[in-house]
Amino acid sequence: MTRLDLTGDLVELTRALCDLPSVSGDERAIADAIEQALRAYPHLEVLRDGDAVVARTSLGLPSRVVIAGHIDTVPIAGNLPTRLVDGELWGRGAVDMKAGVAVQLALAAVLDAPTRDVTWVFYDHEEVAADLNGLGRLVRTHPEWLACDFAVLGEPTAGGLEGGCNGTLRAEVRLTGVAAHSARAWMGVNAIHSAGEVLRRLEAYEPRTVHVDGLDYRESLNAVLVSGGTAANVIPDACVVTVNYRFAPSSSPEQAADHVRALFDGYDVVVTDSAPGARPGLDAPAAQEFAAAVLGITGGAPAPKFGWTDVARFSALGIPAVNFGPGDPLLAHKVDERCPVDQIHMAFRAQLAWLTA
Amino acid sequence: MTRLDLTGDLVELTRALCDLPSVSGDERAIADAIEQALRAYPHLEVLRDGDAVVARTSLGLPSRVVIAGHIDTVPIAGNLPTRLVDGELWGRGAVDMKAGVAVQLALAAVLDAPTRDVTWVFYDHEEVAADLNGLGRLVRTHPEWLACDFAVLGEPTAGGLEGGCNGTLRAEVRLTGVAAHSARAWMGVNAIHSAGEVLRRLEAYEPRTVHVDGLDYRESLNAVLVSGGTAANVIPDACVVTVNYRFAPSSSPEQAADHVRALFDGYDVVVTDSAPGARPGLDAPAAQEFAAAVLGITGGAPAPKFGWTDVARFSALGIPAVNFGPGDPLLAHKVDERCPVDQIHMAFRAQLAWLTA
Repeated sequence: MTRLDLTGDLVELTRALCDLPSVSGDERAIADAIEQALRAYPHLEVLRDGDAVVARTSLGLPSRVVIAGHIDTVPIAGNLPTRLVDGELWGRGAVDMKAGVAVQLALAAVLDAPTRDVTWVFYDHEEVAADLNGLGRLVRTHPEWLACDFAVLGEPTAGGLEGGCNGTLRAEVRLTGVAAHSARAWMGVNAIHSAGEVLRRLEAYEPRTVHVDGLDYRESLNAVLVSGGTAANVIPDACVVTVNYRFAPSSSPEQAADHVRALFDGYDVVVTDSAPGARPGLDAPAAQEFAAAVLGITGGAPAPKFGWTDVARFSALGIPAVNFGPGDPLLAHKVDERCPVDQIHMAFRAQLAWLTA
Repeated sequence: MTRLDLTGDLVELTRALCDLPSVSGDERAIADAIEQALRAYPHLEVLRDGDAVVARTSLGLPSRVVIAGHIDTVPIAGNLPTRLVDGELWGRGAVDMKAGVAVQLALAAVLDAPTRDVTWVFYDHEEVAADLNGLGRLVRTHPEWLACDFAVLGEPTAGGLEGGCNGTLRAEVRLTGVAAHSARAWMGVNAIHSAGEVLRRLEAYEPRTVHVDGLDYRESLNAVLVSGGTAANVIPDACVVTVNYRFAPSSSPEQAADHVRALFDGYDVVVTDSAPGARPGLDAPAAQEFAAAVLGITGGAPAPKFGWTDVARFSALGIPAVNFGPGDPLLAHKVDERCPVDQIHMAFRAQLAWLTA
């Protein structure tokens, strides 16, 4: 088994985590290594649930925070083992989110007397279908282990503080027509031509920017898939435009669905799935303490998170939660995924300052 | 082997041909039966080429005509064996085009002294990819057997006389964009949205009707397929609209391609395949003799054929050719394919009158 050194060099720890492949569904080895490393620290109580590992201090402090990160990655694309080049760590997972996991493990090891009780969560299956998500499973199987006043998700934010997240909704706009042989097209009604007006409305659509709890959430509404027609000599009787609406956390999924239906008034709109966003929660006292301590080290100001992340799972539990982690989120899932080592060290120092303040 | 009685009841002959399944690629048995039946007539010289059978008189007459029909059908859809109900023959192939084949076989048997030399062509693989077409193969392997002054294709025309055919062209209009995660849609360019203008132009397009050699050819230009997007959380960087242009036989495929490119000026247009139409050729003396004789029996007037048929293969050889056969073409390939027996008898009488005049 890979042995992880949690108190040695932080970049080497990040590399060790990256070089232990853990594509979603194959997290057993990395979970074993993390569990073994954490059990060496008597100040931590450790829980194993599937391939998730949870460790917590129990100092009886008046406040408890959860700091969570996922241990799986998207598939490797020839970008392992890691390479260290000009101050950047290259390789699958360097950004999303082994660097964040390394910071969390190093803090868990060193913080035997934090100023807040801390629950460290390392979970599986984040990069795949939502019903497999390890954090979601922990909410169902061990909700008491996730109880807290505030949560930090170590998703990449390039070392900035990103609050909440947009919600997401997918819907199908279904066009119908009448099939006919294309040699006698006038006997049919072309369903693909009918999609022209749907796409025109999307092209003319001006997405909103919505101010929520002090942050500006930029929305978007796009066709992501289109499919129509059965054969090259048949007037198509069906066409489906799939749209994805990313909506500000001040709207519920129901309100988002109404917004999409209103845009496509007169068309058959079927919502296929949706997930609520998460309000930034930066007005909560625990969040303000976190922001003050972290931004004192990193500088900058809180910003909104546009992508949906698991902070929404905490938000759904009534727990304010933010994203904070090393690595440029735009490089997540890319072949040239890479993380500046400075951001890894800064993320460590910032959270150390917070948890010892 | 099924034995065909070419001089008995014409409807029974049609049923025997239908009830001998011959879906494209499986024409051996029906070709064997046709070959055996024709070889019984000493006034016919018979050629077998693959599963095509050709028979001809050689009376040294000043004029020769080809009368051709395909012996394959589209797949059976539970609509065999045939049924005779209220004067209509129901079943796969009744329209497309075993009734026409039956008429040709009956005429071939009885006409030992026609007023024109006749070449009867029964060919395979009409309902599948053009490169398999049995008539096309005969043009390559035995061009001398297809030499003539005029050709009649027995495709269903409901007993009317349909001249020439529209050409057909397929092209892809390819839209490109820039991929991005749909949570940060503003970093991408949506290729599906770009297709909106393409579909708008198609919807606004007013197809022409073109007068060619006395007949009005109705054109059409339609999207037949559309496909775009890679995943429900990615701004699509590609979308393809496949269009099918059915153009009057006065235009060449090159002119048709120019017309499509002009409509989609500013877009990436790739022509994927095309086939020329066939001018009706009704001004040729042999065609006028045919029209006069046939319309004297059937009444009515020549009309254009909109769908592409193998008359275009004769047209490409410089041979005027028309479609004339029993059965409503709108019922071809349908589950409820059926042919009025009156049309079968009328098609026989009309061509008998022509070939004995």
